Amino acid sequence: MLPGPTNVPNRVMRAMLAPIINHRSDDFVELYSDVVEKTQQVFQTQNDIVALSASGTGAVEAGVINLIKKDDKVIIPVNGEFSNRLSQLIAGQGANVIKLETPPGQNATFDQVKEAFDNNNDVKAFYVVHNETSTGTMVNYLDRVSDLTSRNDAFYVVDSVSLLGGVSLPVDKWNIDVCMTGAQKALAAPPGISPISVSAKAKKYMIENPPPTMYFNLARYFHYYEESKHTPFTPALPLLYAYREALTIMLEEGLETVYKRHKVCSDALYSGLSAIGLTPFAKEEDRSISIVALNYLEGLQDKTFRDTLAQKFKVLVAGGFGDLKGKVFRVGCMGEVSPYHVMRTISAISSTLAMMGYETNAQAGLKTAEEKLKDL
Amino acid sequence: MLPGPTNVPNRVMRAMLAPIINHRSDDFVELYSDVVEKTQQVFQTQNDIVALSASGTGAVEAGVINLIKKDDKVIIPVNGEFSNRLSQLIAGQGANVIKLETPPGQNATFDQVKEAFDNNNDVKAFYVVHNETSTGTMVNYLDRVSDLTSRNDAFYVVDSVSLLGGVSLPVDKWNIDVCMTGAQKALAAPPGISPISVSAKAKKYMIENPPPTMYFNLARYFHYYEESKHTPFTPALPLLYAYREALTIMLEEGLETVYKRHKVCSDALYSGLSAIGLTPFAKEEDRSISIVALNYLEGLQDKTFRDTLAQKFKVLVAGGFGDLKGKVFRVGCMGEVSPYHVMRTISAISSTLAMMGYETNAQAGLKTAEEKLKDL
Repeated sequence: MLPGPTNVPNRVMRAMLAPIINHRSDDFVELYSDVVEKTQQVFQTQNDIVALSASGTGAVEAGVINLIKKDDKVIIPVNGEFSNRLSQLIAGQGANVIKLETPPGQNATFDQVKEAFDNNNDVKAFYVVHNETSTGTMVNYLDRVSDLTSRNDAFYVVDSVSLLGGVSLPVDKWNIDVCMTGAQKALAAPPGISPISVSAKAKKYMIENPPPTMYFNLARYFHYYEESKHTPFTPALPLLYAYREALTIMLEEGLETVYKRHKVCSDALYSGLSAIGLTPFAKEEDRSISIVALNYLEGLQDKTFRDTLAQKFKVLVAGGFGDLKGKVFRVGCMGEVSPYHVMRTISAISSTLAMMGYETNAQAGLKTAEEKLKDL
Repeated sequence: MLPGPTNVPNRVMRAMLAPIINHRSDDFVELYSDVVEKTQQVFQTQNDIVALSASGTGAVEAGVINLIKKDDKVIIPVNGEFSNRLSQLIAGQGANVIKLETPPGQNATFDQVKEAFDNNNDVKAFYVVHNETSTGTMVNYLDRVSDLTSRNDAFYVVDSVSLLGGVSLPVDKWNIDVCMTGAQKALAAPPGISPISVSAKAKKYMIENPPPTMYFNLARYFHYYEESKHTPFTPALPLLYAYREALTIMLEEGLETVYKRHKVCSDALYSGLSAIGLTPFAKEEDRSISIVALNYLEGLQDKTFRDTLAQKFKVLVAGGFGDLKGKVFRVGCMGEVSPYHVMRTISAISSTLAMMGYETNAQAGLKTAEEKLKDL
């Protein structure tokens, strides 16, 4: 129940055992074309796809350095570790970063974003972290952002590393120029492959203004793909096989069913854990579907709690990040998450709290969750 | 028999099936510490190690952007695709690149390198591709280079992506500041993990002068490792398990035995394939141990030859790169390469040539190879 890397189904793990092939062969062309096509389906896009052999941060960095140059004006909401990292990456390019800062657990509102656009008619790009893994918040107005970016043709970039696949993120419908994710979150593949989608407009810009990098120079990937459906550098083959299998499983289940499963399990976790006596960290309207962050009860020791949960019940959750270390813990609700995972997690957390001397209402928690799960 | 990615032993493939763990846990600390320690043994170094989740080019890029700044003077021998890429990466930083260019298949001599140092007493770094995968050459004087770099305390950087593990490359003894390799070559692991070693001097420089990148900022990796033995970003866990297993197998066999096996198999391939009537592409004294590049016989079609070899005999070799496309083919001799691979490859190549109407001396080739293999 980690906020990523998440559980990987056996079918996906076994896909890694395919023999190592020549990455300059027809076998590879078949594999990689399939990866690209299935990624397009999951991203709901016709845009170009690059599946980078790197972790999510690699794709996020590629999404920045291929678009942002010195003195470019960029708007970005910041309210946690990952949005902060993203803004650092943008600032690292020498850009003029307009940060919309809000307290952790709370998102900038759409009106605040709109105000920033109203005050900056020369903005080149809007970057946003869809789902802030460090605090368990999720931005809910991504469908409306292109009303703002379209005013002056600004690029619209979404870092959805810890959410894409868990909720509907229709890249084309919402006019998202660049969208990045990681395989090890809602897509339920092992870490190490990070796909990125690029609109025709952004692609043109990237080809005409390549960054001083090689590994993350997306123009190079477009060129190789168009020429031969290869990647410029030796890709992490076993992980590509696994990632393809994970996408296949998602498409077999059906995207709408996958989204609904995430939503219902998430609702059940929030309400069940609240009923046993815990409080979610994030503001209600900003709560993430894939990361359930909860405040520790008074005096509860982070390490003891998580160690007990892991050792006695084999349920892994994550601690807090940075300033939130020791103050919150985070439960992942993504990938193959199912009613079983939800019920078992609530039960194990409740039992761990009881073992540590806290009074919890296990019965209420389980009953509430069970009720919610009936929506599936 | 590809020049990488190479065959991966089953034991290594199966290691990927270990369950996905939390990369912020004690289990990860155990895994990654072991990876670092075993990498140190194979690199013959006490230097810091970073195992990047990226392909070889990623590690090579990290080895450049963490050390080279605008206007730095850098000497680099160039004679093929990969040394050319490396010099492009260096030039991309705005450096003043002194290229020692030689024809493909032939290395700059030590005297030419020395002359470049004599003429440039303000050089900041010497970069060299140990083994030029595109042409099958290998540099044989890496043991003497630090006599030159030590004159003015220049950095000494070796890109040994396609060779480290196949010959002895004692990083500490030869005073190599930064050394990069890829897991999918002589180390016989799947592609996607690329280790890099960094000397105390280079590390100090990198920490004081971090590059404007996040994913390849090595200072960040040093910091995380020192603080918690973690990596800053979610690593490609299954590949780390596989890479560790590959290192374990190498250390069990013994490094000297591994080097000897590579050398003897390589000698047998060169002499056996020469005896059947082919000629190696590279100049004799510069020939690579891990990549045997051979000239095509007059009129021999690259695609037909390699397709027949693959389809009839299930032996995969690679074609030529860039200008050498259609002119040479390349046989990998690395990783788990053994007398069986050598004999079978010579037999299959000889049979393919015969099927295509060429007269070859299969008997002489096999006999010569068998003789050479007696040294094992």
